[in-house]
Amino acid sequence: MIRRVMAADLPTPALLVDEEIFEANIAAASALLRGTAKTLRPHVKTHRTPALARRQLAEAVIGVTCATVGEMEVMADAGITDLLLANEVASTDKVQRIAALARRARVTVAVDDLAQIDALSAAAQAFSVHLDVLVDVDVGLRRCGLTGERQLLEAAAAVERMPALRLAGIMGYEGRLRASLPDRHEKAKSVFRTLAEVCRLLAVAGYGVDVVSGAGTSTLLEAVADPTITEIQAGTYALMEPDLEGLHLPFRCAVAVAATVISRSGCRAVVDAGRKTLGCEYGLPLTIEEGRVAVSISEEHTVFEWPGTPPPLGTIVLLRPSQVRTTFNLHDRAWVVGRDASIREVAVEARGRSQ
Amino acid sequence: MIRRVMAADLPTPALLVDEEIFEANIAAASALLRGTAKTLRPHVKTHRTPALARRQLAEAVIGVTCATVGEMEVMADAGITDLLLANEVASTDKVQRIAALARRARVTVAVDDLAQIDALSAAAQAFSVHLDVLVDVDVGLRRCGLTGERQLLEAAAAVERMPALRLAGIMGYEGRLRASLPDRHEKAKSVFRTLAEVCRLLAVAGYGVDVVSGAGTSTLLEAVADPTITEIQAGTYALMEPDLEGLHLPFRCAVAVAATVISRSGCRAVVDAGRKTLGCEYGLPLTIEEGRVAVSISEEHTVFEWPGTPPPLGTIVLLRPSQVRTTFNLHDRAWVVGRDASIREVAVEARGRSQ
Repeated sequence: MIRRVMAADLPTPALLVDEEIFEANIAAASALLRGTAKTLRPHVKTHRTPALARRQLAEAVIGVTCATVGEMEVMADAGITDLLLANEVASTDKVQRIAALARRARVTVAVDDLAQIDALSAAAQAFSVHLDVLVDVDVGLRRCGLTGERQLLEAAAAVERMPALRLAGIMGYEGRLRASLPDRHEKAKSVFRTLAEVCRLLAVAGYGVDVVSGAGTSTLLEAVADPTITEIQAGTYALMEPDLEGLHLPFRCAVAVAATVISRSGCRAVVDAGRKTLGCEYGLPLTIEEGRVAVSISEEHTVFEWPGTPPPLGTIVLLRPSQVRTTFNLHDRAWVVGRDASIREVAVEARGRSQ
Repeated sequence: MIRRVMAADLPTPALLVDEEIFEANIAAASALLRGTAKTLRPHVKTHRTPALARRQLAEAVIGVTCATVGEMEVMADAGITDLLLANEVASTDKVQRIAALARRARVTVAVDDLAQIDALSAAAQAFSVHLDVLVDVDVGLRRCGLTGERQLLEAAAAVERMPALRLAGIMGYEGRLRASLPDRHEKAKSVFRTLAEVCRLLAVAGYGVDVVSGAGTSTLLEAVADPTITEIQAGTYALMEPDLEGLHLPFRCAVAVAATVISRSGCRAVVDAGRKTLGCEYGLPLTIEEGRVAVSISEEHTVFEWPGTPPPLGTIVLLRPSQVRTTFNLHDRAWVVGRDASIREVAVEARGRSQ
């Protein structure tokens, strides 16, 4: 479908989303969750695009997950009214912006420090709102989150003490568990076991744990089968990345970057997209139609070797970036290519909203 | 200076430029070129920021170098009237946009294919403008550019044939030659030798070569000493990157990204800047004041290990990104911090302008 549409002469590099695949991925995620009591809260860091996020609000989807306050504000502006910040904040201005958001959306925030709890409580009181809080558990990523029993209980107690805060539950994120990771099933189970233990710890101490939020696309199947997880934060599922292939997920890659051949020499073809339009954290881009991996990349160029004769100057080549999240974050707009070969521009409005 | 200013409570992550260092770098570049007949044409891909580009128009600077047509348009809008596109184009729309730019600026374009020459000529005629052309020479980067004598002569002849085009000279870029590259001096010399040979080839065939454009910051000292190069395309010199240290350049790093400590555990401190605000192509960021290298990075987090006790939650940490060009391309604005602790916002207007 995307190939047909390139006749539309979009200036390259152009970020494209295959609508048919995007919708099939959303339907497949809903199907996976059907019959479970679990909900999906798609992580919008994947695309930072409200027009795509709104379409993910499907069956079993209660709201979205955000990584930054800026993302939350953009999603609230787009009419999304249930927001989780799966991240910590420690600046006065951001705490106040979160409280301001709670005037127009249900807002849940992660915490892993008593100072954050104090600041959120003060801001919530000042803004006459209440905030739901998840205690963040370090399940092995060694980034944010608490580990010790004493610390977890202290955090829960601190949240409960604050009249403007409600202890909604816990969260824990493990990072991507690739298909190539030999003990990935054990790792996923160990993550969910840790969360189950924290649930028990808090329950024994008398705290209610309604929400156990976690899991990404790489652990989505395990999370669906797990009895502890109540809410899944996966985001990449809707657009997919080649890096997740091999996990037998019912999702396909929906993203392409169209680039133009601008130079050729011998078997070499150079296209006009590079690191400033393609996220490369999981490897160099490949051509979608030929499955050819780039041999080198710089800021505005990607070089391919083309056995035989490379395509003529001006040819549009469709590239698959290895990392969808950082790719979207480089573009101001994406083009959604419909089943009927229509194209619709969508703004990547939360691009650059890491503040 | 930057440290003092953080009291101003900029939301983090914030991209900062130390004005004193930026100005000293510009003055040092002018000093290097003084007494030579060479000119500097700063590459604006470094920062994509017209307000910074305009300040680089100092002694011995005749105009700017751009990587994309979008960058050229933004720089022309900012009043810069001498633009080199050190890159090839092969789309009708871009060729026309280049010709349109030539109505309000002196425009030079690189070519490495007869089809580009035809297209540029047709567009220049249609817009009643003339374009200066540099024949792009592949000096070893294996990206764009011509190599064979026959091809080079054919390209020169084709440009000369076109009434709306003028053969201004040649260009060749070698990529970054790091201090760690054992044969970097020989590599640089070989690049300049190649360009000198192409000059002779074209001169013998009766073509004038006024401009020999090339060199980046990593070969700036060699280019200044070289008799062939007439115009230097360096850009990074004005802001510098840690990767260029060890080359004994008279430039210092002027860029910082301010981030806030949002989580801490044991000796670990997590700050609120990651791959969506820090270019990491040359390595993980480090803290400027302590010289501490990050242990891991994700989209919105960078993790440091802090021997002893990490700084309290909410502390502002100044990070040095390894790659300035991709860092600027992630930000909509930068803050220029003056000698007097003033801060001035500048728009990274050509960010995202890879089309």
